[in-house]
Amino acid sequence: MLTAHTEVDRIDHLGEIALIKKIGAWLGPVNPPAPAGIGDDCAVLEPPVGAKQIITTDTVSYGQHFDDSVSAEDAGAKLIKRNLSDIAAMGGTPGPAVLALLCGPDVSIKWMAGFFNGVRLECQRHNVQLVGGDVSSLPEGNFSAVLTLTGSAVAPKLRHGAQLGDYIYVTGTLGGSILKKHYAFAPRLAEGQWLATHSGCHAMMDLTDGLAKDLQSILHVDFSASLNLAAIPISNAARACAQKSGRAVLDHAFCDGEDYELLFTLDADENLKTFEADWAKHFPDVELSCIGHIQPAAPIGRLIDAETNTALPWTHGFEHLRSS
Amino acid sequence: MLTAHTEVDRIDHLGEIALIKKIGAWLGPVNPPAPAGIGDDCAVLEPPVGAKQIITTDTVSYGQHFDDSVSAEDAGAKLIKRNLSDIAAMGGTPGPAVLALLCGPDVSIKWMAGFFNGVRLECQRHNVQLVGGDVSSLPEGNFSAVLTLTGSAVAPKLRHGAQLGDYIYVTGTLGGSILKKHYAFAPRLAEGQWLATHSGCHAMMDLTDGLAKDLQSILHVDFSASLNLAAIPISNAARACAQKSGRAVLDHAFCDGEDYELLFTLDADENLKTFEADWAKHFPDVELSCIGHIQPAAPIGRLIDAETNTALPWTHGFEHLRSS
Repeated sequence: MLTAHTEVDRIDHLGEIALIKKIGAWLGPVNPPAPAGIGDDCAVLEPPVGAKQIITTDTVSYGQHFDDSVSAEDAGAKLIKRNLSDIAAMGGTPGPAVLALLCGPDVSIKWMAGFFNGVRLECQRHNVQLVGGDVSSLPEGNFSAVLTLTGSAVAPKLRHGAQLGDYIYVTGTLGGSILKKHYAFAPRLAEGQWLATHSGCHAMMDLTDGLAKDLQSILHVDFSASLNLAAIPISNAARACAQKSGRAVLDHAFCDGEDYELLFTLDADENLKTFEADWAKHFPDVELSCIGHIQPAAPIGRLIDAETNTALPWTHGFEHLRSS
Repeated sequence: MLTAHTEVDRIDHLGEIALIKKIGAWLGPVNPPAPAGIGDDCAVLEPPVGAKQIITTDTVSYGQHFDDSVSAEDAGAKLIKRNLSDIAAMGGTPGPAVLALLCGPDVSIKWMAGFFNGVRLECQRHNVQLVGGDVSSLPEGNFSAVLTLTGSAVAPKLRHGAQLGDYIYVTGTLGGSILKKHYAFAPRLAEGQWLATHSGCHAMMDLTDGLAKDLQSILHVDFSASLNLAAIPISNAARACAQKSGRAVLDHAFCDGEDYELLFTLDADENLKTFEADWAKHFPDVELSCIGHIQPAAPIGRLIDAETNTALPWTHGFEHLRSS
């Protein structure tokens, strides 16, 4: 549990100075000494050589991005992986990071140790060094952590590069991530890096707010997407969710957030068979689905059912701070 | 007020997508287009040329770093200035930044516009571009913003460079910042940059948690600080606070947080008269005080009254998450 049940397990029993020392110990090899690491007013970075530098920031908050059904380790790992997924979406390689911790006085020290164990393991897996941070207080019962992750990419793949006629691809399967995948996913770093070397890949992003919303981010206003619904890769979790919710399985695949899969477009002149065979050779365990193509804007809508030529009913994904 | 009093002024009436659009408009020239700015999974940075790259992260939370007595504009400016003060402490020049926003659904849109107005003005003043960000939800009544600021410094001044015999200096006056200075301060960027060009300046940091606590960060375990209490630059605000609190004026000067002044050490062989005259020429409006020097560790304590050779009673400053 996030909150402490004994006085001595409360973070405020420790105080900021002792907590920062503990965090250093919990992070172990992921926490280099200052000035390349925690301990000075700023950390000194070594920018990438022969590549562009990229940067992203992402948050996990208790009650929003995880709850008591998620272990402290998995919550910590999720913070790192959410950011890694953004690096993957640019075709990048992760670099140093800084972490801001915002927590209530009643957060459990034991829980925090687990959280940082998850952070450390995920950082070690991907060679991320935590070079700086900040600790501050929130009201009781609250916990948020914000990671800012830098990285490098020889040729970063942007969202805004899709061209008319491009094929639209997604990795993995979609929907129902709330059941487990929202924290138990592997950021598609190797896949993103491989795609970044393909000149035929015109645009790329990671799916965090659902295909329905995210696909619109790579669609120029002059474009619409013609989608083959039979090709949408539906996860087992989406089917399980649909049974409970009574909503259509495709509704879950289009609108559930936190898939952390890659969405990209491929030049119309590419040989799909060759491309897909090449993919399968490199990533035999990762599904790849061509779900449609980009066509001129249509008055009926931005996402079009290719079979019936009607607008799809799913146009919204997950949106923070939305009451209606 | 932070929280909305009408339905239409609530952030969740707007939703994340519309809010991000509004933030872009509020930021105006401080918000460049993607990929150098907000709008892609990562932002692409141009690392500094001919200087080291530095990075820091700092937070402002409602109820912790500001309350309803601080205007939205001042709260926004404070977020930027807290980070600028860290860059100043390294003798650096600020560069691009990313911002993570964590807010309750009931935060006022009008208040948020004011907050971002403060952010924009302070960024413009110091040539900071906001190149990326993240928006997520917190429970009602909560608001936090985390900025990660990069910068450059030809020769970053570190905390850990102080030498035996060094003189100890502070800029400005200390204590009582809670009355106003905690948000109405000017980060000592020009001063820090000037000091960074002085080889005689061995160590530097900014005072955020009070002199008593922060001075210990630049004291090697083999050192103590011999302090001339008559030389401590006491602010009028510290005197005002002491009248109300009944605590000693020096207690406020040593232990109150958020001075945002520079603390640095100067080689024992420096000519102080020349140095101080040079300072006065460059920064005629900024007080500079030599408050003591670094001597070998003493068994009686780390901070010593030079006159009586006794340990000072003030050893702690502001500490987050400390119950006792």
